Amino acid sequence: MELIEALQWRYATKKMNGHAVSQDKIDAILEAAWLAPSSSGLQPFEIIVISNPELKEKIKPIAFDQSQITDCSHLLVFAAWDDYSTERINDVFARTVAERKVAVDSMDAYKERLTSRFKSTTAEQNFNHAANQAFISLGVAITAAATLNVDSTPLGGFDNAALDVLLQLKEKGLRSVVLLALGYRDSENDWLVNLKKVRTPKDRFITKL
Amino acid sequence: MELIEALQWRYATKKMNGHAVSQDKIDAILEAAWLAPSSSGLQPFEIIVISNPELKEKIKPIAFDQSQITDCSHLLVFAAWDDYSTERINDVFARTVAERKVAVDSMDAYKERLTSRFKSTTAEQNFNHAANQAFISLGVAITAAATLNVDSTPLGGFDNAALDVLLQLKEKGLRSVVLLALGYRDSENDWLVNLKKVRTPKDRFITKL
Repeated sequence: MELIEALQWRYATKKMNGHAVSQDKIDAILEAAWLAPSSSGLQPFEIIVISNPELKEKIKPIAFDQSQITDCSHLLVFAAWDDYSTERINDVFARTVAERKVAVDSMDAYKERLTSRFKSTTAEQNFNHAANQAFISLGVAITAAATLNVDSTPLGGFDNAALDVLLQLKEKGLRSVVLLALGYRDSENDWLVNLKKVRTPKDRFITKL
Repeated sequence: MELIEALQWRYATKKMNGHAVSQDKIDAILEAAWLAPSSSGLQPFEIIVISNPELKEKIKPIAFDQSQITDCSHLLVFAAWDDYSTERINDVFARTVAERKVAVDSMDAYKERLTSRFKSTTAEQNFNHAANQAFISLGVAITAAATLNVDSTPLGGFDNAALDVLLQLKEKGLRSVVLLALGYRDSENDWLVNLKKVRTPKDRFITKL
């Protein structure tokens, strides 16, 4: 299976070579991320795509000076809603009934159940729930990149608050969740490229009942 | 791109037809989930694969009687570590240095940084971090299923605590995170199958900087 081979090929690239990824491949990876499913279809996150070298330089110290930030071609910032709100949920459902050409009130009961559910949990819990949806999309994007032979490194280690300030995410009601550096491996200088991929033994990872 | 077409084909199947998914396809989906990347390679979750009809019947009321629980072929339960611990982290690093045939102490500094990092956060925060990794794997598994023309429905709405008791997850230091029902759509009886896939307009979902 091609997808399995792609996932075996991919690894968390530690050293990228600065080569640009073509726009059509970036677009395909973003299309996959956009198509990823999310809880109740709310898609409670956005993706900021950074290719500007000066901006990448500013992000680098926020992300412990990891070289992929500046050596990647495009840096994706997955940023989740800081909370669910009636307005945000209404917006999704208004679009859904309009695009599906179904009765305007046909999803009202479901919408109200969702709205009251997210009112019963804290903003932090709701943000975590939204962030989970971003991680599903991250998984889809990584898989898409691998099938295109584009290297990708998910980066969770960065100063989220500092990045939120730099990108003015708070003003948009967003909080940064995770980064994905897209680019190409520098095979000669990456210490990880030839090391074995290690996973939990499958008989411990998977239990059949 | 085949993967994009697969993602457009997939949808959150509401009504499955009870047909079995072949073992080789289930194995490929699990292989993809297993190969998914995770933060520091810790893979802090497990997957329980349920095909036993009696057990699925017991889970159904725990998951708001959603029909996919019993009409699916295989139900995957993604269960994350309830916390990070020195023991768990040591176990991963011991395996990593052994399989990579590198010096036993070559990853000690990194290991200790990680261990102390997860001691500075609460068990709940650590569980959330572990759950995020399960969601990456979920995204990869959904993508793999779609490329195999296997339907999948991620199910987040269930009584986590009750499922943890039923599957004795607490005893294993795990907490259920999300379910993935794998099977085949019942196209004649699924209200969602012919409705348009709705997503956030791309110019709002993606910001280029």
